[in-house]
Amino acid sequence: MRVTDLIEKKKANKELTKEEIHWFIKNYTLENIPDYQMSAFLMAVYFNGLSKNELTELTHAMRSSGDTLDLSEIKGIKVDKHSSGGVGDKVTLILIGIIGALDVPFAKMSGRGLGYTGGTIDKLESIPGFRSDLSTREFIDSVNSINVAIAAQTTELAPADKKLYALRDVTATVDEISLIASSIMSKKLASGCDGIVLDVTVGSGAFMKDVESARKLAQKMVEIGKNSDKETVAVLTNMDEPLGYGIGNSIEIAEAVRTLKGYGMPDVLEVVYTLGAYMLLIAKKANNIGEARVLMETAISNGSAYNKFLEFVQNQGGDISYVKNYDALINASIIREVNAEESGYIHRIDARTVGEAVMALGGGRENLDDEIDASVGVVLNKKIGDQVKRGQILAYIYGNDENKVDTAYEMIVSAYEINEERIERPKMILDIIQ
Amino acid sequence: MRVTDLIEKKKANKELTKEEIHWFIKNYTLENIPDYQMSAFLMAVYFNGLSKNELTELTHAMRSSGDTLDLSEIKGIKVDKHSSGGVGDKVTLILIGIIGALDVPFAKMSGRGLGYTGGTIDKLESIPGFRSDLSTREFIDSVNSINVAIAAQTTELAPADKKLYALRDVTATVDEISLIASSIMSKKLASGCDGIVLDVTVGSGAFMKDVESARKLAQKMVEIGKNSDKETVAVLTNMDEPLGYGIGNSIEIAEAVRTLKGYGMPDVLEVVYTLGAYMLLIAKKANNIGEARVLMETAISNGSAYNKFLEFVQNQGGDISYVKNYDALINASIIREVNAEESGYIHRIDARTVGEAVMALGGGRENLDDEIDASVGVVLNKKIGDQVKRGQILAYIYGNDENKVDTAYEMIVSAYEINEERIERPKMILDIIQ
Repeated sequence: MRVTDLIEKKKANKELTKEEIHWFIKNYTLENIPDYQMSAFLMAVYFNGLSKNELTELTHAMRSSGDTLDLSEIKGIKVDKHSSGGVGDKVTLILIGIIGALDVPFAKMSGRGLGYTGGTIDKLESIPGFRSDLSTREFIDSVNSINVAIAAQTTELAPADKKLYALRDVTATVDEISLIASSIMSKKLASGCDGIVLDVTVGSGAFMKDVESARKLAQKMVEIGKNSDKETVAVLTNMDEPLGYGIGNSIEIAEAVRTLKGYGMPDVLEVVYTLGAYMLLIAKKANNIGEARVLMETAISNGSAYNKFLEFVQNQGGDISYVKNYDALINASIIREVNAEESGYIHRIDARTVGEAVMALGGGRENLDDEIDASVGVVLNKKIGDQVKRGQILAYIYGNDENKVDTAYEMIVSAYEINEERIERPKMILDIIQ
Repeated sequence: MRVTDLIEKKKANKELTKEEIHWFIKNYTLENIPDYQMSAFLMAVYFNGLSKNELTELTHAMRSSGDTLDLSEIKGIKVDKHSSGGVGDKVTLILIGIIGALDVPFAKMSGRGLGYTGGTIDKLESIPGFRSDLSTREFIDSVNSINVAIAAQTTELAPADKKLYALRDVTATVDEISLIASSIMSKKLASGCDGIVLDVTVGSGAFMKDVESARKLAQKMVEIGKNSDKETVAVLTNMDEPLGYGIGNSIEIAEAVRTLKGYGMPDVLEVVYTLGAYMLLIAKKANNIGEARVLMETAISNGSAYNKFLEFVQNQGGDISYVKNYDALINASIIREVNAEESGYIHRIDARTVGEAVMALGGGRENLDDEIDASVGVVLNKKIGDQVKRGQILAYIYGNDENKVDTAYEMIVSAYEINEERIERPKMILDIIQ
């Protein structure tokens, strides 16, 4: 096989065979094929896309490029959950409590935040003592004893994806739907689950800016899942304004705990219940969405979800006094109010700008090895659809540096758009692909 | 400036600015920009092409990426001639005599052959003693004293083009018309001429297989020439069968000399006179094509073109006794006849196959550092349109190795297509773009 022939084939919009794709990815991972040939191929993929077969085989080739996690020792149907990222996205934290309380195994590998989107591991590590560096043994044992465990990805799952992603990042080939889909799914397939629920976020704070492209991405991922014998459902959720009221690491832990205690914001609950319902359906804990919803609501109202979260934090070394008294987590030295400059209805809170304000405060990473300040963040006091009068509080900024708070203040002011016209709360669930 | 932004721009089919293109090429040549970013860019160019401005600026950026030849010391209007390559293409050899005899400076940098197409330098070096490694000083002085000089490219003209071409070769991005045009023209513009006549060959033995794509290439090159203030004409010539009767290094010298002595084949003369006419027009030696043609015919009939060729060979150290008695050049140990297996008219002589037969005999290069055997080759006894009877000689194979001659024999047989129907000689000049 010759690499130029494979590039030529894709350039001419002909279908590559399974053997060709596996040979290409294997030899690229082994560094037998140089980056300059792969980047030419990726650009040809940008223009000509991938067929259904190519998409599945590329994903499988990347999945098989390194270690895969064997979770067969875990009893029951293991459903993984993946979010394409957002601002104020504390859904996984809440589902840990709910899904764990309903006796469904939830064994999740998770990542750290990068750019304006947060990461579940960073949020959990704002709880003193919390450990995410579980060995595979600890990870499996934890799920078998208390149903839930979250670990930072340590073993090298899908190294071809990592190498390809780094190359796409510097060759302007990130934004191709098939490549995005296979990148996400290769890691999910390597992580040993039986089924997958995908939260495909859409809007200003998400990677996908519009419903149409998010739907295409979702369809491709669901297709890959099915072609890999994994039941897969994708939920398109609104990420045009931040999810819930809190954005920032410890602030989001606090909001997750409040939600588990029964004080959840409607937008957060809608996303949590929808994703959770499909997890329960795939795990065969419920026969339909209505039944699943009742189970989840009960888990919150009877306290079992909150208790499961406490158990989970304690099991991973976290100091649960900070969960019980979450105000202690929010210890930024400066709290600045952002007041409305005009009266009207909130029409827009640009999620990306809010995420970037939290980064400016020190709560996010530019690079993967940056330190973050878990205590800083933003709490929204008004959401889209709310009425506000001039001078009322739109949001609070939590920071530890006056200059950074000044910068964040300007950003939060610019993120809000106020208009005289009354406006409905935005729809949270935009589509479901299964 | 960021490379990814430039790749992104081309990907989105937006026009790059002059500054962006020059910055990109300059930093690529300096190795500040890695191959993997350039190859992604080139593949985006394959799909989206280059605008007129981008095409000109890319060419100029490559021209200026290294040394350029200063020929201002040469008196008169210097017209360069370029062929996109072919089989049996001895046109430059003949024009040396004709153009030089008509007192027009012909200062030509030339290349060696690669693959199934021959190179002028290789052909000339089959004359014992001939030197092509002229210094710039020798080159200029030769043209000033006898009008003509041919030198192998020694100084690094357009190194960006060399680097880009090598990358295109391994990333399946060779066959993009704009990139081909700017590659050729960057070297021509760096070689210090005042005007350019391009021989764009078309057909089986050429890089361009059909008239339509050859015309596009010609248009782009002429456009670049005009945007660079160089009068430029492109002539599309037929390269479906080999040009003339001889193919092989010393065999082509012999045919060139015979042509200069007045025994030229009609197809060769048609190409020589057409290209030569435009050279004379650009050099202001003739007012129209008819006048140019008369001048050239006279140069042959009165012996001045032949004498100029002798002077040229002697000036570059060649032993002119081999020119005067060119049979001495053709000293292959084996001469094999290829006989017609059926009667009829010759409908096709596949030029590429004939070129590959000469390579198989040892007369061409697979790689730039391969040694070649200048004595081997093929002489066609029948051309397209000729009638032939079963058993008559189609061609002669000249070789030095029985096995190689056997291989070449099969190839020559397969190159010929004989059919009962009478057929016209093919048209040689397919279009003229100016």
